[in-house]
Amino acid sequence: MLKYQHIAEEIENYIEEHKLQQGDKLPVLQDLMSQFEVSKSTVTKALELLETKGVVFQVRGSGIFVRRHKRKGYISLLSNQGFKKNLEEFQITSKVIQLDVRKPTTEAALNLNIGPDDDVYYVKRVRYIQGQPLCLEESYFNKSIVTYLNNEIITESIFNYITDGLGLNVGFSDMFLHIDKLTEEEAGYLGLEKGDPKLYVESIFHLTNGQPFDFSKVTYNYVQSQFFIQAVI
Amino acid sequence: MLKYQHIAEEIENYIEEHKLQQGDKLPVLQDLMSQFEVSKSTVTKALELLETKGVVFQVRGSGIFVRRHKRKGYISLLSNQGFKKNLEEFQITSKVIQLDVRKPTTEAALNLNIGPDDDVYYVKRVRYIQGQPLCLEESYFNKSIVTYLNNEIITESIFNYITDGLGLNVGFSDMFLHIDKLTEEEAGYLGLEKGDPKLYVESIFHLTNGQPFDFSKVTYNYVQSQFFIQAVI
Repeated sequence: MLKYQHIAEEIENYIEEHKLQQGDKLPVLQDLMSQFEVSKSTVTKALELLETKGVVFQVRGSGIFVRRHKRKGYISLLSNQGFKKNLEEFQITSKVIQLDVRKPTTEAALNLNIGPDDDVYYVKRVRYIQGQPLCLEESYFNKSIVTYLNNEIITESIFNYITDGLGLNVGFSDMFLHIDKLTEEEAGYLGLEKGDPKLYVESIFHLTNGQPFDFSKVTYNYVQSQFFIQAVI
Repeated sequence: MLKYQHIAEEIENYIEEHKLQQGDKLPVLQDLMSQFEVSKSTVTKALELLETKGVVFQVRGSGIFVRRHKRKGYISLLSNQGFKKNLEEFQITSKVIQLDVRKPTTEAALNLNIGPDDDVYYVKRVRYIQGQPLCLEESYFNKSIVTYLNNEIITESIFNYITDGLGLNVGFSDMFLHIDKLTEEEAGYLGLEKGDPKLYVESIFHLTNGQPFDFSKVTYNYVQSQFFIQAVI
């Protein structure tokens, strides 16, 4: 984690601890600089990151203000940190259905920008929130980047492992969302009826250098999941 | 529109015209500065905006690269520009169901941060894509900000009118997404069956000064709509 990212986290903690509300003003730049003992450019970059993440908004000539329309229990669609972080007030668990090394499907190869003979880790798991099925997840990891996975790792947060364990820098993601009806197989995993609504999300996660490393397909249980997005212009 | 926003648009047009693909490198800062005849800080701010919007990504020490995983016909969930801009290759039309000035519901008052006796414009319309029902939309506009609406305006893009007509600066939005089943009324408007899947989105749109001006509730036709998000860290 870079210094400004760390300071961004500190500022988020500050907002949390001081129970700041929507529209509350943050301390001025000078005060943030002395409080965190960092340079102006570090604080500025941290604030820009927080603006991008929808944590604060800046009003020219007037200051930096808190955004806090977050509703409890909503999953952020803009976070690349995985659910564990996102829903940390809830108990998130996983059941592994499948883990193996295989050749990618045509679709996975295309989205991961690899050849048909390259290896991928294939992970299929059901994730639970407070013991209730939250989603069914299928992921294809480019094995030349995510070099090792095992059952223990994928029962926990894969993203924590990727960043902390493998030391990779997760950059950005492209997500494609569809609403549809559950198939019988999906309904079985999620404890719902065939034909019930689903949110189906395809995501391509990239490293900061632009290389895609994870192509995932997630089917959400509509009863257990709700989402929020804090968008900038 | 501020200068760097204009330059950001120009760079987007440049990417479009040169048919740049995912991972293609943009000209260096110096070249962009001379091409658009603006200062370094303007180009830098423009590029930051484009990074936030998911149009480009920056690799430290290596350059600025194009993001282009957009799939045709997908609605961007991060755009505050409305569908008209978003789906400009398609024909988007609207049928107005209701337009009046009224007192806000408790929910609308809360989300718009106004009192129960303040006036709102209430707009209910069905939007169509290529003649097919795309979504049912109910919006509450704070009348002290959006001072005038009529049938002609709301048949077209309300957001174009708000920015170009009223000269307001649209800032950020908070969106809350739920998957559920259509009610009979909603199904009727969308040409679907009661119980069919729906994406239901509540949005609160703010001016750049942080003031909420529009609280909207949109129910999407799952057959006609698909969405994308280009997320940063």
